[in-house]
Amino acid sequence: MLFDFGLDFTLPDKDGRAFPLTSLLGRYVVLYFFPRAGTPGCTREAREFQENLPRFRSQGAEVVGVSPDSPMRLARFAERNALEFPLLSDEDGKLAEAYGVRSEGKFVRSTFLLDRAGVVRWAWRNVLVPGHVEEVLTTLEALIKAERNVNALIAVRRAKRALRPDPIPQEDITRLIEAAHLAPSCFNNQPWRFVVAQGEKLEEVKKALPGGNYWALKAPAIVAVASHPDLDCRLSDHRDYFLFDCGLAVGFLMVQATQIGLVAHPIAGYDPLAVKRALGIPEDYILITLVVLGWPGDPADLSEKHRELELGPRIRRPLAEVLGWNAFPKEEK
Amino acid sequence: MLFDFGLDFTLPDKDGRAFPLTSLLGRYVVLYFFPRAGTPGCTREAREFQENLPRFRSQGAEVVGVSPDSPMRLARFAERNALEFPLLSDEDGKLAEAYGVRSEGKFVRSTFLLDRAGVVRWAWRNVLVPGHVEEVLTTLEALIKAERNVNALIAVRRAKRALRPDPIPQEDITRLIEAAHLAPSCFNNQPWRFVVAQGEKLEEVKKALPGGNYWALKAPAIVAVASHPDLDCRLSDHRDYFLFDCGLAVGFLMVQATQIGLVAHPIAGYDPLAVKRALGIPEDYILITLVVLGWPGDPADLSEKHRELELGPRIRRPLAEVLGWNAFPKEEK
Repeated sequence: MLFDFGLDFTLPDKDGRAFPLTSLLGRYVVLYFFPRAGTPGCTREAREFQENLPRFRSQGAEVVGVSPDSPMRLARFAERNALEFPLLSDEDGKLAEAYGVRSEGKFVRSTFLLDRAGVVRWAWRNVLVPGHVEEVLTTLEALIKAERNVNALIAVRRAKRALRPDPIPQEDITRLIEAAHLAPSCFNNQPWRFVVAQGEKLEEVKKALPGGNYWALKAPAIVAVASHPDLDCRLSDHRDYFLFDCGLAVGFLMVQATQIGLVAHPIAGYDPLAVKRALGIPEDYILITLVVLGWPGDPADLSEKHRELELGPRIRRPLAEVLGWNAFPKEEK
Repeated sequence: MLFDFGLDFTLPDKDGRAFPLTSLLGRYVVLYFFPRAGTPGCTREAREFQENLPRFRSQGAEVVGVSPDSPMRLARFAERNALEFPLLSDEDGKLAEAYGVRSEGKFVRSTFLLDRAGVVRWAWRNVLVPGHVEEVLTTLEALIKAERNVNALIAVRRAKRALRPDPIPQEDITRLIEAAHLAPSCFNNQPWRFVVAQGEKLEEVKKALPGGNYWALKAPAIVAVASHPDLDCRLSDHRDYFLFDCGLAVGFLMVQATQIGLVAHPIAGYDPLAVKRALGIPEDYILITLVVLGWPGDPADLSEKHRELELGPRIRRPLAEVLGWNAFPKEEK
């Protein structure tokens, strides 16, 4: 379960009701496995989690205990110790198995910290109860603090140009488009259309690039992004949503690309008519960008200007030029 | 250092050259701390990392060893054991201190696994050498496998409507806009302009919402996103880039919002002229969306239709309708 989405399970709680772990999405989750309700170690651990429950909840975290006990035994355990957090009965050990904390039929005392998106972010195995709850709290606080920083993938993404032409597995390209396709859109119109160019078609697309985009000739794949105004909302005051929504989708695509170590560089420099012809994109569609894909390569292959851009600092206007609090920012038009 | 960006350090390597850890960005990093070069435990550990170096590198990972030894001592250690990975000299212990693995002036044998974006994803403290390198490899493989799935924040994001009106710290809103402002744009034009509405201005904006957006009345803040065609590239074949680039930026904003547990729901249903007036957005700008912000609330507050949308499955066209391989997907226009 390391690093995976960890909430795809439903177990009975102490009252015998089905408890889908996905109902915890959006909160941090402290999922702790204990061997047997009522024993001294498990009682002490549960009471310490209970004592600190307000601290966990005030941080947006829920505590969930899991053991191989029956719901009835868990209900008694909860009552005797005034436990207010969910206790789940994993009698056949399927959750413990998935988390790798079942050994010779028994549960190894273990705790997992999951983030708001249900990803396991930290694990403690063979837990010793003294001091454990305090350590979980400290770790939770460190995670929350780190999460308030700008998302690491967004922070490190750069519009790199130096590419290695090694092929990209089809599966990874599919994931990029799936990420894009999960973007929101006006009335859920999903106006984006993607054409992945590889092989011969890719060569045709490359012929439509001007000299300045020489670096893109190394790309093992290029994604054309096209749409049509009528595929999305057209509202008052010149609000056509198709390109905005395509931008949202490509934003998600780029986050996904960064996650797997791919460069995904959207460009505007190409002959749109030639690319449309090559890929069979209808003439009346707007071909808004080509997303050049590739693995990071050697900046030495780039022109001097591009090498400087590649290695130099990231250039952005001061935030005050694009962000106003209750007023329009200083106009730069 | 738990969960933080872990590469903001520069140390001398075994040849005395400055080695900026940021040069490792884009690769997985196995950063391991050892107490003293040349001792039996440190020699065995280093040799095992060296033996497995091809396996680490074939997965896109670099191994880096750090100790309090001088560069000269590290150079001898590398030569005697034919170590080909970087060894860094942390004589004053500043890196070990930051990673919390310095105890009474000594380094605690520890290993950290960092992802491609430089975030610490796993840690081993008080490492016992036998079996350790194999365990690091197994963990790295699990991380890589998980990272090829669709990004968890993108996967769990939903355009939720049920909101709690608790205030959002100014710092968190600023991070949202900073994430947006890191988006790429045509010629780096950065055409987006954000106005955050709070307090009285927020009330004015809410007056411009139609009845169907009743749920947004609970929002503690709304971000207006505006731009002008002349702020960005205007290219042949009707390619105006300003709205596409604003979409990229709002995509990043939404990833950041999801990371901190905020709902960020972009809407198109509002009176654009009234909102522009309220926020001082110039008349000739396009007010492309209002991003409604808030903490997740109780779906019971929603209309029946919205409650169903909130709790129901996510609806998307089949991928084949939006994705074509070397050809335009089946048209649905």
